[in-house]
Amino acid sequence: MRVKYEDMKDTFEKVLLKKGFEQELALENAELFAQNSLDGIYTHGLNRFPRTIDYINSGYIKVNAVPVKVGGFGALEQWDGQMGIGPSNAKRSMARAIDLADQFGIGCVALRNTNHWMRGGAYGLQAADAGCIGICFTNTIPNMPAWGGKDSRIGNNPFVVSMPRKGSNILLDMAVSQYSFGMIERMAKEGKMLPVPGGYDVNGVLTNDPKLLWESQHAVPIGFWKGSGLSIMLDLIASVLAQGNSTYEIGKLPAEFSISQIFIAINPEKYGDASFMEKCIDDTITYIKGSTPVNEGGEIYYPNEMSHAVKSDNLKNGIPVDEDYWNKVCSY
Amino acid sequence: MRVKYEDMKDTFEKVLLKKGFEQELALENAELFAQNSLDGIYTHGLNRFPRTIDYINSGYIKVNAVPVKVGGFGALEQWDGQMGIGPSNAKRSMARAIDLADQFGIGCVALRNTNHWMRGGAYGLQAADAGCIGICFTNTIPNMPAWGGKDSRIGNNPFVVSMPRKGSNILLDMAVSQYSFGMIERMAKEGKMLPVPGGYDVNGVLTNDPKLLWESQHAVPIGFWKGSGLSIMLDLIASVLAQGNSTYEIGKLPAEFSISQIFIAINPEKYGDASFMEKCIDDTITYIKGSTPVNEGGEIYYPNEMSHAVKSDNLKNGIPVDEDYWNKVCSY
Repeated sequence: MRVKYEDMKDTFEKVLLKKGFEQELALENAELFAQNSLDGIYTHGLNRFPRTIDYINSGYIKVNAVPVKVGGFGALEQWDGQMGIGPSNAKRSMARAIDLADQFGIGCVALRNTNHWMRGGAYGLQAADAGCIGICFTNTIPNMPAWGGKDSRIGNNPFVVSMPRKGSNILLDMAVSQYSFGMIERMAKEGKMLPVPGGYDVNGVLTNDPKLLWESQHAVPIGFWKGSGLSIMLDLIASVLAQGNSTYEIGKLPAEFSISQIFIAINPEKYGDASFMEKCIDDTITYIKGSTPVNEGGEIYYPNEMSHAVKSDNLKNGIPVDEDYWNKVCSY
Repeated sequence: MRVKYEDMKDTFEKVLLKKGFEQELALENAELFAQNSLDGIYTHGLNRFPRTIDYINSGYIKVNAVPVKVGGFGALEQWDGQMGIGPSNAKRSMARAIDLADQFGIGCVALRNTNHWMRGGAYGLQAADAGCIGICFTNTIPNMPAWGGKDSRIGNNPFVVSMPRKGSNILLDMAVSQYSFGMIERMAKEGKMLPVPGGYDVNGVLTNDPKLLWESQHAVPIGFWKGSGLSIMLDLIASVLAQGNSTYEIGKLPAEFSISQIFIAINPEKYGDASFMEKCIDDTITYIKGSTPVNEGGEIYYPNEMSHAVKSDNLKNGIPVDEDYWNKVCSY
């Protein structure tokens, strides 16, 4: 089943209005959820909308709360998300970072007491659409062991970097874990093996078998000790600059809410030569795409390249939906 | 054999003076090289000093060239390293980013036409010593295949993040490759296996065997497709903001010189509550170190924790040196 973007957005909007959201916020978040599905990131669009409604019902997400500025110095600002809904909190924070970059060349907003931003890449694209390089990251509940440990004490802290490019922004949007548990669970159910090792089995042997990982719950960070260190640093930066909850503090809560995020925008047009920038990006992309493929006839993609085709197809033919999720959302 | 820090530093300084460096630059670089060895990063201290001298002899590194400002807007500046020696170019750039952070809360310096900075972590520690969060990265020659490709077209682009902490700064200093070729070569010579897979053999099978990786030269980035994307983004940011050489352009040169680097400093003391920051860091470190170890009696370390003990030992007992390198440097 496929649903038109406009229909999905309108449906989300209606549900949020029913939940008591003001018009502007309902629309803003409906767009963000629907755009994630439109871009092919179904896990953080439609599929996560019901859990967001659950969080609203549980009071973890406060209806109509928006970020307020609580501190700042020049191009660096601290905001409190007041436990508002994650996507609009994040979008407004990146918008502020873009404003600061317009004023100072670079801007940084640290946001505390916010909620899951769904697809972090949305805010990277937002920066790129405004002509800025975007860097943003979030902390999470503890969901991965630190290197050398067995129990989950670090977050998979998604990390996003974007680069503006005419017609096709470049975007890296990655969790610091090699695989999400959602992916591990899905592959286990489908009886498939992971393409590269995703963690350790209960005997401490590195494995590609999602069933063994589901059993051990011992997923690994990207690059093993390296990603473990990266996760720790991102969490420290977010919680220190936002004066918000660290992964450690979030782990004490009954669910993943009241988290900390960082939004950085850098405006290269403030001093740069646009033609240099375009050529530099084009040359690099052409060079990388010209690699000899590992598999004959294979193609090498730049970060986020594949989503452009998915978006075009979904715009034209509607967004493919998991009917369980779609029917649930329509029934609210 | 062990050499006192002061003796190593003085020896480097004498060699650089002989090469025509002015006193201040000779001392600044001698200190940076010797400090890297003091901290246990021998590969980017003493062991790399001879290659630096070779680069000076080849004219790739220009004696007495220092960075000059070529553009800027507020907290974002563009500098040209004028092909000067890497360590002092990098140190001066981070110093400027720290100044900008003092003025604007956050500062970013993009540096082009510079050379290998040796240990990137040195500039992270420099930011942390000044009370700042430091983020810096560099591009490199193409030395790793992009995901899906066979030939080396992306760089291992070291990425550094630091967090100030009284008495024990926290520092992540990682190349985006899982292992350096230096490490792969050393392990192959010693007949040891790598602890986690480092790349693909000539048949495309993921392997821990350094001999097979040395043969295939197909090392992998951290997190496979994720690190491949991260490498591309870091290269694009550095080359676009510095208007300098990208990895693609560096690959056309006869050696790795005239590279691009980014230095970001963020000063949390400008609006933050120092006691919150200290508690947040301490709690996180205590929590992570309290993990159940994978191996009985094992310890979990925070990023760069182990270097503190190495530094103390090397300060007290002298820096262990590879005599081949040491004798070579003494003979210049």
